[in-house]
Formats: sequence, C-alpha cells, structure tokens
Amino acid sequence: MKQILLAHGNGGRLMRELLTTLIFPALKTSESSTDASAIMSDDRTPMLTSDSFTVQPLFFPGGNIGSLAIHGTLNDLAVSGAEPAALTFNLIIEEGFEIEVLRAIVESAGEAVSDAGVRIVAGDTKVVPRGQGSGVVIATTGLGWRAPTLMLGMEHIRAGDAILVSGPVGDHGATVLMAREAFGLSSALRSDAACVLPLARQVRDLPGLRFMRDPTRGGLATVMHEIACATGLGVLLDEKAIPIRAEVQGVCQLLGFNPLMLACEGRIVVVAAPELANQILTRWREDALGTEAARIGTVVEGGKVCLLTALGGHRFIDELSDDPLPRIC
Amino acid sequence: MKQILLAHGNGGRLMRELLTTLIFPALKTSESSTDASAIMSDDRTPMLTSDSFTVQPLFFPGGNIGSLAIHGTLNDLAVSGAEPAALTFNLIIEEGFEIEVLRAIVESAGEAVSDAGVRIVAGDTKVVPRGQGSGVVIATTGLGWRAPTLMLGMEHIRAGDAILVSGPVGDHGATVLMAREAFGLSSALRSDAACVLPLARQVRDLPGLRFMRDPTRGGLATVMHEIACATGLGVLLDEKAIPIRAEVQGVCQLLGFNPLMLACEGRIVVVAAPELANQILTRWREDALGTEAARIGTVVEGGKVCLLTALGGHRFIDELSDDPLPRIC
Repeated sequence: MKQILLAHGNGGRLMRELLTTLIFPALKTSESSTDASAIMSDDRTPMLTSDSFTVQPLFFPGGNIGSLAIHGTLNDLAVSGAEPAALTFNLIIEEGFEIEVLRAIVESAGEAVSDAGVRIVAGDTKVVPRGQGSGVVIATTGLGWRAPTLMLGMEHIRAGDAILVSGPVGDHGATVLMAREAFGLSSALRSDAACVLPLARQVRDLPGLRFMRDPTRGGLATVMHEIACATGLGVLLDEKAIPIRAEVQGVCQLLGFNPLMLACEGRIVVVAAPELANQILTRWREDALGTEAARIGTVVEGGKVCLLTALGGHRFIDELSDDPLPRIC
Repeated sequence: MKQILLAHGNGGRLMRELLTTLIFPALKTSESSTDASAIMSDDRTPMLTSDSFTVQPLFFPGGNIGSLAIHGTLNDLAVSGAEPAALTFNLIIEEGFEIEVLRAIVESAGEAVSDAGVRIVAGDTKVVPRGQGSGVVIATTGLGWRAPTLMLGMEHIRAGDAILVSGPVGDHGATVLMAREAFGLSSALRSDAACVLPLARQVRDLPGLRFMRDPTRGGLATVMHEIACATGLGVLLDEKAIPIRAEVQGVCQLLGFNPLMLACEGRIVVVAAPELANQILTRWREDALGTEAARIGTVVEGGKVCLLTALGGHRFIDELSDDPLPRIC
C-alpha cells in the first residue's frame, strides 16, 4: 500500500499495521497497550511544554517537519532550564499522503529523538479526508525535570543585563521562505534547525543567568518585545553585533523582510548578568552549534526596543503584526 | 474581526491579542511568559498521554471538539489509574474560521477543564491556509500521577475475570454519524462524551481490578481484540447483557453498522476478578454516569473474541478493518 487511506486512522487493523510496521519502529517507541505511559520521577520539578508543527514545505534544506517537531519541543524544554524526560507525538495525516514520504518524516523524528537521548512515550495518529489537511501536521509535547534551585524567568531580568545569542539569526525563516517560493533563485541557505539542549546545559546552572528563550516565530525582535512587555524595561540591540548570514541579508534585502523577525529553530537567546557574558560566549563557542555566538545588546530602562544602527543612530523595532511567513514551524 | 487570518498564527500582535482576549480566558489559563510550565510533583509515578481530535462535525448533540479534546485526554489518564495534574492544548485553525465559533469551542474546553478541577499549563496555536485544514483540529496532552502500588494492565488479566462496562455503548459514534450525514432523519441520539474520572476513582484502588480502558475509536469490539491479542486469552461477551440504546440499535440496523464497533467517549470498560463485579456495579450505579453499568462478559481461554447471541448461539466478532466513521474523535 502506497497511500494513506482514511481507514489508517480508524483504530482497527490497518491502523495497527501502520503503527507497528512504520511509525513505532521509526520513532523507536514500542506499541503501548496502555493509554498513558509512566515516566520515572525524582525530586525535581516537572515541566511540560507543547507545540504543533504545520511548516510548508514539509521538507526544507536542513530538516523536515519530523525532525523540527522534535527539536522544537526539546528546545522549549531546554530554554526553560529543564532536562527532557519524555515526549508525546501526534500525527494528523491527510488521506492520500504517500506512505514513503511519511516514513521519511517519522524516521527523521526518530533520529532526532535518539540523538537527544530521550524517548517518545505516547502519541496518536489521525487521518483527515483528502482536501481537508495539508499533508502532515504534527503536535508534540515534552515533559522534563528542572532543578528547583534554578532562578530563570523574565522576572529576574534587570537593567544592565547582557543579551546574547548562540548563532546567526533568521536562517530557518529565510530557508523556508526560499524553499516555499523559490523565486527562480538558488541559494546556499540552510535551516539552523537543531536541538539546543547542549547549549542550554552549558549555561543553565550559572548564577546570574536570568532568562533563556529560543527565537522561533517572530524571530529575535519578538523575544525582545516580550521582554520589554513583561518587565517594563527596554532593550538596546547593537546592529553590528547581531550575527546574520550574508545569504539571509541578501534574501531580506531582495524581498523586503526584516531578518530580526525571521524564525530561528536552533538558536538560544539568553539574558544574563553582564559579568557572565564572556563566560557564556566561551562555553558556547566550544560547541559546534555555538561557534558564532555573540553578545548583541543590553537591557536598559524605558520600555522601548531599539536598534543602535551600524551608522550610529537609534531606530525603534516595531512589534510584528502581519507576517508573510505564517507556516514557518 | 470576525474571521481568523493567517497572521493570527504568526507569533506577533494579532496572535497575542487572540490569545489574551479569547483563548486564554476561555481556557482559564494565563499567558505564560515561559516555554514550559512547572507542575507540582509528589512521590507518585508521572503518567503522560496524548491525543489529537479531528471530529466532524465540530459540534454534535452532547458536545463539540473542544470539550471532547479535554474529556478524551482526561479519560486516557483516568483509565490508566492516574489522577490528572495538568493538560496542554494545541489548536490548529484554518484561515477564515469564524472567531465566534472558535470562542464557543475553546469555552467548552475551558468548562471541561474547570469541571474536572485540572489546569491547562501549556499550548500552542497555529493557523493553516484556507482549504488546507478542516476548521479546527486540537491536540491535547495530559500529565497525571499514579499511585505506584496500582497493579493495572492487560498483563494482570486472567481467564475467569469479569468484563464490565459503565453504560450503553455506541452513543457517541451513532450521534456523530447522524449529525454528519443526517439522512433526512431526526433522532433523540446524544453523545455520551463525558469525563470518566469519577468512575475510575470509584474502582481504581480495588484489589483485583486488572485493567481499565475507554472504548473510543473502534468501540467495545476493538478493546476486546486488544485484550485477546495482548494476553492470548479469549473473550466471551453476552449480547443480552451489553447495554445499547434502542436509538443506537435503530441507526445500526438501518445503516448496517455494528454498535460494538461504534465509539464511546464517556464509558469505561474494566476487567476485574469475578468476585469484584457486584461491588464495582454498585459503586458505578450510584454515579449519574454509571446508572446503566453492566457486567457484559468473561475472559476465557482460547484467544477468540466471541458473542453469546440473544438466541443462544456463538458468533465470532471480527476485528475492525475498514470504518465508515473515521472522524469520530
């Protein structure tokens, strides 16, 4: 059988065969005969996060919706300071979807799970009729444990704190845009999609670390606005210091996008006491994911998000309100 | 604004407004400024379950996709023997969806959450382009805690055990079928969709309780086949003892469905030591959800799923392989 039938979602024999011959082996999980799965606990705080993934196209340079659905949820746990313990994986498949394409997607997800050393413990598969879906949509949830001693959160941010990013911004957004639209252009762009857990582990226990966040939908600018909105403080970013690849700048200049509003899927932004900045950069730059880490700005008084431009002027950064790239993750 | 725009899914201002003015208040959750949420722990075993919901029509007599998405996941925790602690809620909305209809759906979900005394701690909202969705799809995940002393699972089932159900089967499946197809018929059918946690609490600590399951997709017959498949034992159901409403029987006879394969969304099936059967029935019948609870069969040797018919004969019950009702939950 080459294509998904509606009956693959009905709970009966065809569905069981799809699960046992394709989905469970790919995800490295076993058929569970229970409705909920047990996860070992200890004396740390359980953290729960959840996300759904609707990226189009389903495959893009550097990843696909399967690996993205794992990395995205692991990253949300990572930036909360948690160590992932278990994942759930929900597939919503459109009738007629090619089974070999589904295999490639769930195998990528399975590899991402293995690489991170975690396990999928529960999930669900639904099939929607042809013309009422968009190929595949995936929803994942992550459970992790966080040391109760961690003091991470926007409420700990103070004026004078340093803002750092683990690598160039906007690669994922620009890559998906090019993969979707093509525009007759070829490019060397590649999504930054990756699991940032190693980067989070490097810094999460440092006293003086205030806050971590992965700048996905809405990009770096949106994280800065969230900080300003939550704290009443302002942000001053240094345009010259923000790492942006030349290919991403090129795409943005050509098409009128702001790279600070394009999604990343493998970067962390942290806010930390200024005296920590060099130590964080040193640790990150030792990791292949963090070689281009940079200090990009400072928390200031005043409630505004501003850019110190390359020419020495100040420019307000608006909050994103409409977006040409809605299906970025 | 009356309709969902693609920009409602972009992470920017419109999305924040949709979340803060509609979705968070309806779900009785607050805007979280963190990526993952902490849940209080204790010394019990954490249990994780996940499900996605694609039911069509989105509204049916007795419920809608919002309440169903909460009940479905709470029920999966309940039958695993867990006490729910926290939920996550992922919305995938089609561009152009009416915002007032979305409000009705998330408010139903919020009421279901409140009624069960739990809390939504994380979630995500995505918008897919018009024509690439089916209105609204919801994925929910539940985290619960189970007493480590509970010995629940198919591996504990033995020949001679009693099989019980908490109420009539097939109401949800028959109701959704009628709501979808109409067939020019009116009916008094109403989905059984409900939270079965009170029923599970009544029995989960009884020594001799082997296994609980909610018979959703594929109905009672599918749960019986799962038991036979997992244990190598057989099941003998007593047709006369299985509660089925006359309206459900009528729809099934008219349209050629088997009520044992129609989904329930507010019933529990349990397998228990035979001497427990009366005690369970007594407890359940004191609850409004369990007034029609019945002992419907026995676990036997032999690996087959059989029905003792009203005429005194034996009939094998096939495993579901194709299903006229794929979007039942």
